[in-house]
Amino acid sequence: MTEGTPGGSAADRFALYDLFVAYGALIDAAEFDAWLALFAATCSYHILPRENYERGLPAGLVYCDSRAMLEDRICALREANKYNIHNDRHLIGLPRLIREENDAQLVEAPFAVYQTDQEGETRLFATGVYSDRIVVEASGLKFRDKLVLLDTFAVPSLLATPL
Amino acid sequence: MTEGTPGGSAADRFALYDLFVAYGALIDAAEFDAWLALFAATCSYHILPRENYERGLPAGLVYCDSRAMLEDRICALREANKYNIHNDRHLIGLPRLIREENDAQLVEAPFAVYQTDQEGETRLFATGVYSDRIVVEASGLKFRDKLVLLDTFAVPSLLATPL
Amino acid sequence: MTEGTPGGSAADRFALYDLFVAYGALIDAAEFDAWLALFAATCSYHILPRENYERGLPAGLVYCDSRAMLEDRICALREANKYNIHNDRHLIGLPRLIREENDAQLVEAPFAVYQTDQEGETRLFATGVYSDRIVVEASGLKFRDKLVLLDTFAVPSLLATPL
Repeated sequence: MTEGTPGGSAADRFALYDLFVAYGALIDAAEFDAWLALFAATCSYHILPRENYERGLPAGLVYCDSRAMLEDRICALREANKYNIHNDRHLIGLPRLIREENDAQLVEAPFAVYQTDQEGETRLFATGVYSDRIVVEASGLKFRDKLVLLDTFAVPSLLATPL
Repeated sequence: MTEGTPGGSAADRFALYDLFVAYGALIDAAEFDAWLALFAATCSYHILPRENYERGLPAGLVYCDSRAMLEDRICALREANKYNIHNDRHLIGLPRLIREENDAQLVEAPFAVYQTDQEGETRLFATGVYSDRIVVEASGLKFRDKLVLLDTFAVPSLLATPL
Repeated sequence: MTEGTPGGSAADRFALYDLFVAYGALIDAAEFDAWLALFAATCSYHILPRENYERGLPAGLVYCDSRAMLEDRICALREANKYNIHNDRHLIGLPRLIREENDAQLVEAPFAVYQTDQEGETRLFATGVYSDRIVVEASGLKFRDKLVLLDTFAVPSLLATPL
């Protein structure tokens, strides 16, 4: 696998699929250390409403511009989760190769997230699209820039887990 | 890639996956010219409740028997969309190769469509299954006959975007 | 394809994808004989809330420890379905290879199931994750142990179709 072409061979394509599959599965299993390992050494992670993104408004719900910020955020979420018990379930569509940008591949994938609360009620929590820059590191494909574009601006401001 | 066997090699299979991925993503991004380019020069596009289809009832919600009809329909939808602002989000399952029929491949894929309105509320809009005939043209795989089978007959009669 | 390595080559990987795709599609089409043929000669099929599974509680909603039990269960469901008319729609995420265990492959995949009732209303019915042991038999990949982990304990006790 050469840099910047995660969609080349069949093996590269499956590696890309596996990256997105692992992304959702590890959140749902609350395995956040393994989840963090899906990100590149230098990375960003943003959640913002699609509308803000399209209008060029910077206001996001989550804004982590470095790996340290992302790790801090995950620590905080773990603490918060003790008081907000719920299960997530991600359904992520097949990734779509958009284009190469310098040494990264721009890839998009639609998603729906369901949450189940302590009363056992399952609800649709959010839908949107991932718009990610993916790079090849020694240990495999990684998210360098993860942009979570939500279909709605009306998400509860307290996101208790990553999306 | 030879005619009628889009599921043969790994490259053919990924091309099939990419066709379905693009189908949903382009509706969600409101890129309807690019979406139209996913259809063959000679094509059809029908939306009808699964129940009608199984009983052989012809009544459909959308009935485009030619490319010209489909293009007209898209023009009309664009106009209507100015007054019905919403976002779609398609989640499409992996395509399933059913069989070859003459020079086309019959392929099915389940889907769920969510819509988000101007108040920011996201709702499940429809579920169903695509039952499509796919052909190989010079520029790649195309939908020749797209049949959108809805799980319910109770969809709002005004479909503001394709499904 | 050698035993226990359904995720090896591209062909093996697609065979795995196809197994999960067929699993959902055949339930949704009510083709239960073909659905049963996706299971190994020796097989099990369990449905239980994820919470019970994580706590080691055995109580499940469906407990079939042999192929004969599973076939009996399907017979009973067919009878029950005459009085509970609905359509299912499965959306299943990409399968995730977890590890090999003896001669089987442990594979997980997230799912959402929607049901449409006779009034035409479509609702989210359940979300969860399949945690399956998959083996290679002469006729292809089969489910040896299918474990349906539901995100909620609050599923109606009468499951009118498999999940």
